[in-house]
Amino acid sequence: MNASPAAPSPSAFPAVWLRDNCPCPECRDPRNGQKLFGVTDLDPRIEVVGSDGFLVTFSDGHAARFDPAWLASHALDGTVPDDRTEDAKALWATLTPPEGNWSRCLADPAHMRECLNAVLRTGFVLLREVPVEPGAVLEVAGAFGYVRETNYGRLFDVRVEATPVNLAFTGLPITPHTDNPYRDPVPTVQLLHCLSNAVEGGESGLVDGFNAAALLRAENPAAFELLASTPVTFRYGDANTELTASRPMIGLDPLGRIREVRFNNRSMQPVRLPYERTEAFYAAYRAFAEILNRPDLQVRLRLAPGDCVIFDNTRILHARTGFTESGDRHLQGCYADLDGLAGNLAVLRRREAVVDHLRALFEGPGADDYLGEEVSQAAHMLQAAACALRDGAAPELVAAALLHDVGHFTGEISGHDLMGGTDNRHSHVGADWLARWFGPEVTEPIRLHVAAKRYLCAVESSYHDLLSEASRYTLSVQGGPMGPEEVAEFESDPYARDAVRLRRWDDEAKEPEREVAGFGEYEALLHRLVR
Amino acid sequence: MNASPAAPSPSAFPAVWLRDNCPCPECRDPRNGQKLFGVTDLDPRIEVVGSDGFLVTFSDGHAARFDPAWLASHALDGTVPDDRTEDAKALWATLTPPEGNWSRCLADPAHMRECLNAVLRTGFVLLREVPVEPGAVLEVAGAFGYVRETNYGRLFDVRVEATPVNLAFTGLPITPHTDNPYRDPVPTVQLLHCLSNAVEGGESGLVDGFNAAALLRAENPAAFELLASTPVTFRYGDANTELTASRPMIGLDPLGRIREVRFNNRSMQPVRLPYERTEAFYAAYRAFAEILNRPDLQVRLRLAPGDCVIFDNTRILHARTGFTESGDRHLQGCYADLDGLAGNLAVLRRREAVVDHLRALFEGPGADDYLGEEVSQAAHMLQAAACALRDGAAPELVAAALLHDVGHFTGEISGHDLMGGTDNRHSHVGADWLARWFGPEVTEPIRLHVAAKRYLCAVESSYHDLLSEASRYTLSVQGGPMGPEEVAEFESDPYARDAVRLRRWDDEAKEPEREVAGFGEYEALLHRLVR
Repeated sequence: MNASPAAPSPSAFPAVWLRDNCPCPECRDPRNGQKLFGVTDLDPRIEVVGSDGFLVTFSDGHAARFDPAWLASHALDGTVPDDRTEDAKALWATLTPPEGNWSRCLADPAHMRECLNAVLRTGFVLLREVPVEPGAVLEVAGAFGYVRETNYGRLFDVRVEATPVNLAFTGLPITPHTDNPYRDPVPTVQLLHCLSNAVEGGESGLVDGFNAAALLRAENPAAFELLASTPVTFRYGDANTELTASRPMIGLDPLGRIREVRFNNRSMQPVRLPYERTEAFYAAYRAFAEILNRPDLQVRLRLAPGDCVIFDNTRILHARTGFTESGDRHLQGCYADLDGLAGNLAVLRRREAVVDHLRALFEGPGADDYLGEEVSQAAHMLQAAACALRDGAAPELVAAALLHDVGHFTGEISGHDLMGGTDNRHSHVGADWLARWFGPEVTEPIRLHVAAKRYLCAVESSYHDLLSEASRYTLSVQGGPMGPEEVAEFESDPYARDAVRLRRWDDEAKEPEREVAGFGEYEALLHRLVR
Repeated sequence: MNASPAAPSPSAFPAVWLRDNCPCPECRDPRNGQKLFGVTDLDPRIEVVGSDGFLVTFSDGHAARFDPAWLASHALDGTVPDDRTEDAKALWATLTPPEGNWSRCLADPAHMRECLNAVLRTGFVLLREVPVEPGAVLEVAGAFGYVRETNYGRLFDVRVEATPVNLAFTGLPITPHTDNPYRDPVPTVQLLHCLSNAVEGGESGLVDGFNAAALLRAENPAAFELLASTPVTFRYGDANTELTASRPMIGLDPLGRIREVRFNNRSMQPVRLPYERTEAFYAAYRAFAEILNRPDLQVRLRLAPGDCVIFDNTRILHARTGFTESGDRHLQGCYADLDGLAGNLAVLRRREAVVDHLRALFEGPGADDYLGEEVSQAAHMLQAAACALRDGAAPELVAAALLHDVGHFTGEISGHDLMGGTDNRHSHVGADWLARWFGPEVTEPIRLHVAAKRYLCAVESSYHDLLSEASRYTLSVQGGPMGPEEVAEFESDPYARDAVRLRRWDDEAKEPEREVAGFGEYEALLHRLVR
């Protein structure tokens, strides 16, 4: 839905690439977009034997028609995207912590999107106003993904324990580290939620490990190279647990981009490199640790009850200052994963793009005249939505009221043709168009809202008199009042009742002077309904 | 507990390595073994200034005493262990599938260990006799780790669906692939449990992806190199999900060892490499796919109800032949992770090592004379355990009966010294020694079993007459009958009652001719009690 760059010609792509990416329903399942053949099913000598614009014919007899916008967005420009590497991050030395508010996240998808984006781009977000209740951290994690259960449980309590299995459960200071390096796959997201923090000390610190690794690369390339090429073993054991994982402290992608940092002095096991390499390794390890410990690379936070910090555990190191063990400090933590978080962000963006698109319709073509009425189309639909809200309609039906006439903007023939005597079937056009994003509770009352007018004219003698002059005119184009068989059929439709309610709001929503809420008031509601 | 290689001298290790690995309680928390300092806390110019055998003094004034066996097992031999790479695997072209039995796994830890080991070494195991009940697959996964919840749920049903979001939910054939390549971290273990399979076709196939990658490396090194160095994007989207991950098809560790395979034609997205490299990539991709599709590299299984295949999803590709959609075929699957599986295996091995060690004691020193009795020490303890079993004692108390005299083998002075007139306090020595592995329900009745004899002599006039001649003699060495204060103190101990029961079995367990179960009968019981 964004403006696309100019589409390259299919000849800019090798024949095998084009054949492999044919979008036709024989090649990709239209239900799920999955490819229906393997690379070995393709003729190894496949060639393009003809092309007509974006229609390409292959030597195997198959023809593929490409969407120019799709080709443009998949140009062979050498892009090797990987949102987990340093290329996709905003590295920082120090910064004002990105903050969010949990209740606002729940009410406003755009705010949720900003918070999730901060975790992906900046590496963390500090959420305020999470309920100060045990277990609330699981709700936060569950809102964007799935909790990763470990031997510590679905959640774990960070407070002083009598026989700590982990130094986290003491009052000792803890230097910057990533969690659970002895796990593979390592949990990629960590949440820490503060329930109480009434001690001296116990401040939290965060360090951008990607930034620190990039500094090491700049300051001491040999040390960077050594840490990136030496797997180190981390271990954790207790009565029922025995975990080890071996990975380099600095993990690179195949293109050499920083992709993962593991750093934890507590659980690191002895290296077993040859003597000289061991000495070089220790020098490199120290150089990296010295960077990680630089005070000017650390963001300090004092978590207060209700604060929850969410961070990328493959990138952000966390630390805490020591505190008096007698005081009351209680955090609850849990683990989750970046793929779920990024996936949720992508869904939010997809939904937001739909809402943006609808908003643009309201602000553009919707501001036009409404078929001889004294309100614009946008004002008419906003009035209908306001009526639905006033009458306590379900969110789906409010959305239907808000969007019931989008078919006027999206149909292949315009609403003005309707006034010229043609049924543009705008109800069906609008419903079909919206069905890409909304369920039947939204689309079906819209589909039936013209039929509902014909139905009401048939069953309510007083109804016809309520119609506006323009609406009475279009009734004749739309087929006039229903006959008895049509009435019975209409009444059997599960969405008939909603369509009739929508119809009455439609009829009511034509007052030039009425002041109602604007499109912005419905954005969160629409957002939640997009599938 | 295995024989160790000769211990290297501390001089074989750099000073910084020795200092960093000091095992003293100032350096490592004795409660959890975690290191209490960071590398930057060490003097960068640290030197060894003196050594006396395995006691090393450093220039910072600290002294470290090393366990020779520990040093031997951490020699600087260049080992860079990583159990997830090809080095730790048994690659296969084809083989008889490793099989296990689920009910046996639950009863016999050694069998469970073999099954888990098959997943790590061979890449999969076929478990029989999993209950044919929905959800049973979650119990199997839960027995060795944690279920990885995804957008498909905690478990997913693999059967024909009307509107499949994934081709898995159709009757189409599916070529070898790994699951969820669009997730990062990818689920590293998959379980598929068959509830019904009454269709034509629908056979499962498994391919060792590490073996296939190794073949590619041998046959076409340039193709191997290209696939290992090119991140590929995989994507999955549905109404509420939008997942993408970019990783190479063949993932290597920093030493170039094969560590992970991702292969899934259905969800692979278009590559965006430059034109020529795109062609080269397709040639490499085809070469790998052709190897993966070789029939002689595929193990075929026909899953029957109750079968559950557990496999390493970073290594093993799975496939299925097509089947008639009208038939009844229903699998349930779930995801889990290799770290939990390997951790559970390590715990099983640790427990098994304890049991092995105890068995060796029974077969070695335990076969010796028992202090003037007519049974060997081992036979005596086995008789005591049999009495405990007969009387319905809890497993912990059965173990206590079985092990109550291990102090005779492990004490610093031998039992024969006791007969020479010295109290070897074998009850305390045994209890302390066992406390490394067993809880107080096992160790404390053992600690008190000598006191229980003195107690019974004090409170039961007939008890003394029941004692064997040797036992009457040792009573005097052990302090004679208790006085009233000692009796009161003894009775207040929470384990006194168990100790008295144990004592009576001890006294009863000295019959030369009694045939009782051997040590092997107690192994599973002991295994479960090891912490």
